[in-house]
Amino acid sequence: MAPTTYFLLVSFLALVTSQAIASDPSSLQDLYVADIHSAVKVSGFVSKDPMAVNAANFFKAANLDKPRDTMKSKVGSNVMLPGLNTLGISLARIDYTPLGQNSPHTHPRATEILTVLEGALYVGFVTSNIDNGNKLFAKVLNKGDMFVFPQGLIHYQCNLIPDKTVVAIAALRSQNPRAITIANAVFGSKPPILGDVLAKVFLVQKGTIDWLQAQFRENNHY
Amino acid sequence: MAPTTYFLLVSFLALVTSQAIASDPSSLQDLYVADIHSAVKVSGFVSKDPMAVNAANFFKAANLDKPRDTMKSKVGSNVMLPGLNTLGISLARIDYTPLGQNSPHTHPRATEILTVLEGALYVGFVTSNIDNGNKLFAKVLNKGDMFVFPQGLIHYQCNLIPDKTVVAIAALRSQNPRAITIANAVFGSKPPILGDVLAKVFLVQKGTIDWLQAQFRENNHY
Amino acid sequence: MAPTTYFLLVSFLALVTSQAIASDPSSLQDLYVADIHSAVKVSGFVSKDPMAVNAANFFKAANLDKPRDTMKSKVGSNVMLPGLNTLGISLARIDYTPLGQNSPHTHPRATEILTVLEGALYVGFVTSNIDNGNKLFAKVLNKGDMFVFPQGLIHYQCNLIPDKTVVAIAALRSQNPRAITIANAVFGSKPPILGDVLAKVFLVQKGTIDWLQAQFRENNHY
Amino acid sequence: MAPTTYFLLVSFLALVTSQAIASDPSSLQDLYVADIHSAVKVSGFVSKDPMAVNAANFFKAANLDKPRDTMKSKVGSNVMLPGLNTLGISLARIDYTPLGQNSPHTHPRATEILTVLEGALYVGFVTSNIDNGNKLFAKVLNKGDMFVFPQGLIHYQCNLIPDKTVVAIAALRSQNPRAITIANAVFGSKPPILGDVLAKVFLVQKGTIDWLQAQFRENNHY
Amino acid sequence: MAPTTYFLLVSFLALVTSQAIASDPSSLQDLYVADIHSAVKVSGFVSKDPMAVNAANFFKAANLDKPRDTMKSKVGSNVMLPGLNTLGISLARIDYTPLGQNSPHTHPRATEILTVLEGALYVGFVTSNIDNGNKLFAKVLNKGDMFVFPQGLIHYQCNLIPDKTVVAIAALRSQNPRAITIANAVFGSKPPILGDVLAKVFLVQKGTIDWLQAQFRENNHY
Amino acid sequence: MAPTTYFLLVSFLALVTSQAIASDPSSLQDLYVADIHSAVKVSGFVSKDPMAVNAANFFKAANLDKPRDTMKSKVGSNVMLPGLNTLGISLARIDYTPLGQNSPHTHPRATEILTVLEGALYVGFVTSNIDNGNKLFAKVLNKGDMFVFPQGLIHYQCNLIPDKTVVAIAALRSQNPRAITIANAVFGSKPPILGDVLAKVFLVQKGTIDWLQAQFRENNHY
Repeated sequence: MAPTTYFLLVSFLALVTSQAIASDPSSLQDLYVADIHSAVKVSGFVSKDPMAVNAANFFKAANLDKPRDTMKSKVGSNVMLPGLNTLGISLARIDYTPLGQNSPHTHPRATEILTVLEGALYVGFVTSNIDNGNKLFAKVLNKGDMFVFPQGLIHYQCNLIPDKTVVAIAALRSQNPRAITIANAVFGSKPPILGDVLAKVFLVQKGTIDWLQAQFRENNHY
Repeated sequence: MAPTTYFLLVSFLALVTSQAIASDPSSLQDLYVADIHSAVKVSGFVSKDPMAVNAANFFKAANLDKPRDTMKSKVGSNVMLPGLNTLGISLARIDYTPLGQNSPHTHPRATEILTVLEGALYVGFVTSNIDNGNKLFAKVLNKGDMFVFPQGLIHYQCNLIPDKTVVAIAALRSQNPRAITIANAVFGSKPPILGDVLAKVFLVQKGTIDWLQAQFRENNHY
Repeated sequence: MAPTTYFLLVSFLALVTSQAIASDPSSLQDLYVADIHSAVKVSGFVSKDPMAVNAANFFKAANLDKPRDTMKSKVGSNVMLPGLNTLGISLARIDYTPLGQNSPHTHPRATEILTVLEGALYVGFVTSNIDNGNKLFAKVLNKGDMFVFPQGLIHYQCNLIPDKTVVAIAALRSQNPRAITIANAVFGSKPPILGDVLAKVFLVQKGTIDWLQAQFRENNHY
Repeated sequence: MAPTTYFLLVSFLALVTSQAIASDPSSLQDLYVADIHSAVKVSGFVSKDPMAVNAANFFKAANLDKPRDTMKSKVGSNVMLPGLNTLGISLARIDYTPLGQNSPHTHPRATEILTVLEGALYVGFVTSNIDNGNKLFAKVLNKGDMFVFPQGLIHYQCNLIPDKTVVAIAALRSQNPRAITIANAVFGSKPPILGDVLAKVFLVQKGTIDWLQAQFRENNHY
Repeated sequence: MAPTTYFLLVSFLALVTSQAIASDPSSLQDLYVADIHSAVKVSGFVSKDPMAVNAANFFKAANLDKPRDTMKSKVGSNVMLPGLNTLGISLARIDYTPLGQNSPHTHPRATEILTVLEGALYVGFVTSNIDNGNKLFAKVLNKGDMFVFPQGLIHYQCNLIPDKTVVAIAALRSQNPRAITIANAVFGSKPPILGDVLAKVFLVQKGTIDWLQAQFRENNHY
Repeated sequence: MAPTTYFLLVSFLALVTSQAIASDPSSLQDLYVADIHSAVKVSGFVSKDPMAVNAANFFKAANLDKPRDTMKSKVGSNVMLPGLNTLGISLARIDYTPLGQNSPHTHPRATEILTVLEGALYVGFVTSNIDNGNKLFAKVLNKGDMFVFPQGLIHYQCNLIPDKTVVAIAALRSQNPRAITIANAVFGSKPPILGDVLAKVFLVQKGTIDWLQAQFRENNHY
C-alpha cells in the first residue's frame, strides 16, 4: 500500500492505528515515530529508534483530494482520518451526501477546527449542564469559512442542501482524537446497555429501545 | 451561608462556580483560591492574593453526610458536587432513589472514581468508535467497592433494586469537571438542534423528536 | 484475591502497586490498564493491550466500608489506598483511633481532598518558606465537611477526642500519590542520615538523634 | 469586517492577534474566547465571560478558498493564518508562486501537518545537532498527500515547477504558533545582530553581512 | 538596585517575587515578563504587555560571583535565588560555612540539579514511604561534580569539612520553586502546630516540643 | 569512565544520551533513571526498575570545573552538557576563546538560564515574525550576571574581548534540550538542502551556497 513500512492500514483500522505515544506536552526527542509492531504498549505506541526513521515516516499518500465513498452511510457522511503519526495533530477529509450529516459526537481528546472546501454546512455544538446550560452554538458555514469545536463537547455538521455534496477539511489536536458518535455509543454498544435503563433515560417504551438498539451499527469514521 | 467569603453558591450554581483557574499541571504557587468576584476571567477564575487567604478558603461545610433531595428528579438521582476550590480535584455525593439512575453522561475534563456507601449499583461506560468499538464495560458494585470511569467516555450508574436507596461518593480529577448529560444535550439544548437532523440520527419521525425535545429540561447535577 | 488478574496486592504493597503510566495530561487512548508483570518500565507501568482489557480492570472490591486495623499503629491511624488503576486519581479510607493521627506528611505528586464520614478531625497544612512563611492553615472538620490539602505541602489530620474513632474518605489527584511521612523520612531512612547532620538541624544532642533514629520504622499507609 | 466583535484583524496583524490564553493542557471551562481588548495580559489573552459568548466567537469568514496575493513576496509565497480563537489549534492556507517557496523557518510552539490542494511541493525538515545530526528529511508531495513537521525543527516547502502555482492547507498545534523565518531573524532583526558576529558564523566578509542585513525585511506570514 | 524596573526585591522577598505566571507547559507567546505591580493575580503574576518589554527584563545583576553572608545562619548556609523571571527555570548560589548545611527540605514544584564550584559536599535525598521505602540516596560531591534531587523529595547538602567554606550553583525547574525546610515547617509554623500532636509524632515530651517550637525561626533561603 | 553503569558517554555522544523519558509534567514515580540499553524506546528512554537504582544514578563526575578544549572550534566555543539523567533539567559549562562565540542557535525543547563565571559576554535573542517582529534583545553580561533565553528563540553569546577567555554555566529546562545551530542546520544538513532553494532564500549565487555548504560541519555542543 504505502511505500513506507510504518504507515497504518487505512480502511477500517485507520483511526485505531493513528495511536502514537508522543504525549501532548513537548516531546523529549526530535522524532517520534510509532512502532505499531511492538508488543510493548504505552499511552499509544512505543517509538521506533529515532536513528532508524526516514522522511517516509512523516509522509502519507492520503488521497485527501479524492472523494470518499458515502454510499454505505445511513447518515450520509464519510470521515477520513488517515492516521499519520502526527505528534499531536491530525488532518481529516469529510464528504457529505446531499442532506448528509456527521451525527452528534464528541472527540474525548481533541479540539477540532474545520473549513469548508465545497458547498455549505450547518454546524453546531452544545455546552455542558448548568451555567451556559446545554446551550447550542450553531452557524452556517460557506466555502472558505472556518469553525472550531471545543474538546469534549457534543457537535455535528449537516448538509442542508438536497442536491449538493459537501467537502470539508478538519484538523484535530491529537494524533488519536477518536470519535464517540452519541447514537452509536448509547444504542449500539457491545453488549447493549440494559434496555430498562435507556427506556427511563429517553422516556420511551422498552420495545422502542429494543428497536433502536438493533439499528445502530454504523461507524462513519475511518 | 458559608462562613467564608469565597465559598460558592451551592444550589443550582454549584457546578458553575466550582470553576477555578489552577491549571492542570503543577501550580506556580502554594495557594490558589478562586476570586469569583473579579471581572477578569482566565481559564476559570483569577486568584485571590495568596497573602490574603486563610484556612476557611480550603474548607467547606458540604453536608456530604446528609441525604439529598431526589424527589424532583425524573431519573431518580441527585449529584451534589459542592464546588470547593480544589486545585484540580472534586468530591461529590450521589443519592439514587429505588430504580434511580445517573443517566448516561460524560465529564469532558475529568476521570471519575466512585465507591458505594450504601446499597448496590450497576455501572458502566462505553468506549469510542472502532477499535474497542463502542464496547460496554459494565459491573455491579456492592458497598465498599470502587470503580473508575475514564475521562470523556459515556458512563452511567443505576440502582436496580426497587425498594432501596443508594448512596455513593465520587471523586473527579478537575475542580470544574462539569457533566454533559447525553439526553439533555441532544434533546434539551437551548435553542434545540434542528428536528430533521435528530430524526435522521435516531431513525425516528420528526414528531417523535418534537416530543422528546419537549421533555428534557432536568439537570440532576448541583 | 481479587477476581481480576490485574488488581494489585493490597496489604503492604498497595501503595507501590498503584503505579500506572497514564501521564497526568490527557491520555492518548480510551483505556489504560497497568501491566504490572511487564519487565519494561516507564513512568509507572506499561499498558496492557487496550483490546484485551475488561470491566474487571476498572473495578476493585476495596472494602472501603470496612474498618481498618489500627492496632499496630503507634500514631493511631491506618490509611488504606487500594491501588486501583485510576488514570490520575485515587480514593483512600482512613481510620483513626481515639487521639490517633495521620502524622505530618506530604504527597509529592498529588493534591488531596478529604471528607469526614464519622467523628471529627483537626486538620492543617503549612506553607513553604518566606511569603506566607510556614503559615499554618488549620481547621476542625465535622461529619460531612470537606477540606483540601495542596500538592507538596506538609499536612496532618488528628482525632482530638479521647473516646471516639474517626473515619474519613480522601481522594488524591494521582494514581500513585505516595506519601512522605516527615518523621519517617528524616529519622527512619535506610541507611540513616548522618546523626551529626540531624543534631544540627534539630538543635539536640547526637544521642537524642540516635534514639529517635531507632524509633521510626512505622508506615501507616497501605 | 467580521460580524462578530472578537474576530481579529486579518491583514498584517493576523498572526499576532491569534494569541489566546487557553493553555495547552485541557482548559478548565467549556468555552474560552480571547478578550483582545483587556488591559490585563496573561499567556496570551484573558477570557471573555463564558456566559457572554456566542457562535460567532467560534466562526471566521476566513476566505480560505480564495487565492492569496503572492505578488509582493520575494520568495514567492503567502501564508494566511486567519487567527481564529482555536483552543490550541490553527488552520492556514499557503499559496506558492511558480518556483515560490516558504523559506526555512521554525514554529517554536507547534507541530504542523500539511496537505497539498493544488500542484506539488518539495518539502523538508532538518533535525538538531549530533545524533541524527542535522539530518535532512525531504519528500515531494503531490495533490492529496500529507506531511508532518515536528515542533521547533527548521523546515521549508518549495514549488519546483516553473509554470504552476501551488495551494496547501496546513494545521498547526497551537492557537499562536508564530513563525521564525531563519533569514529574517538572523539578518533582519531590529536592531541588527553585530556584523562581526555574523561574519564569523557564516564565514564571509563583514561587507557581505552588511549587504545581507539590508535585504531581509519581508515577512510572508499574515 | 537593579537597573530595570521589573527586577524583584532581593533580600527577604527574593523567593516570593520570583513568582511568575508562565505555566509549566509551553507558553503561548514568545515573551512572558511578570508584572508584579498588577492587582490581578493568576498562578503567579500576570504578564507585562509583550510589546513593552526589553532586554533588561531578561537580565539580572545577580552577583552570583560574590560570597553570601552566612554569619546569621544557625545551620551555616545561605541560598541565594535571585528571582529572575525565568520562564520555568531558576539559578541559585549556595554558600556553606565550615560544617554548614542546607537542612533537609523539599521543593514542592521543582527538580534541582547542583554542581560544586568550591570545596566538597555530602548530599542526599530520601524516597517516599513503602517501595523504595524511605531509602537514602547519598553521595560526596567534589568540585565539578553534579547531582540531581527529584521534585518533592526531602534532600540536604552538608559541608563536612571543619575549616573550609563551600560554594555551589544549583538550577531549579521552576521560576518559583520555593523551599519547605522541614524543621521550620514542622516546629516553626505560625501559629504553631498543637504540641500534643508533635509530641506523639516525635515520641518526646510536650515540653521538648515547646522548646523546639521556640527555636525555629530561621530561613536560609533568600 | 564513570563508576556507575548508566552514565552516558561524554565526548560526541553526550547530548544524545541525555535523552530520558521522564515527561515534562510531574513524573508518576519518585525515581526515573534512563535505561539506555533497552531496545524499547519511548519519548526518550524507558526506566530502570526504581527498586534497582542507587545514588550513583543521580551523580556525575562532570568536571564542570575544568576548562574545555576550544582548539578545534572554528567559532571558538565548547558547550559541555554532561548528560545527567535530570528529570527535566540540565546543566552545561561553556568555554569561549578570545572573540569566540556560541553561534545563533535554538533549543527546541528548553528555556535556558545562564550566568558568567569568568569574563564578559555579549548575548542576545530574536523574537518571531510580526508583532515584536524579529526584535533583537541584547545585553552585555559581566561576571555574576544572569540572563534568560526563552524556549525556541534564536539566541547567541559572544566574547567580544580579544585577549580573554570566558566561562559560563547554563541550565536548560529539559534533560534533552538539544541545539539547532542555525548555520549548521541550514548549510550543513545531510544530505544538503537544494542549493537553488537556499540561493533564493539568501539572495546569493548558487555557487556561494555550494561554497557555504562545504564549510559547515562543526558542532560545538558535546
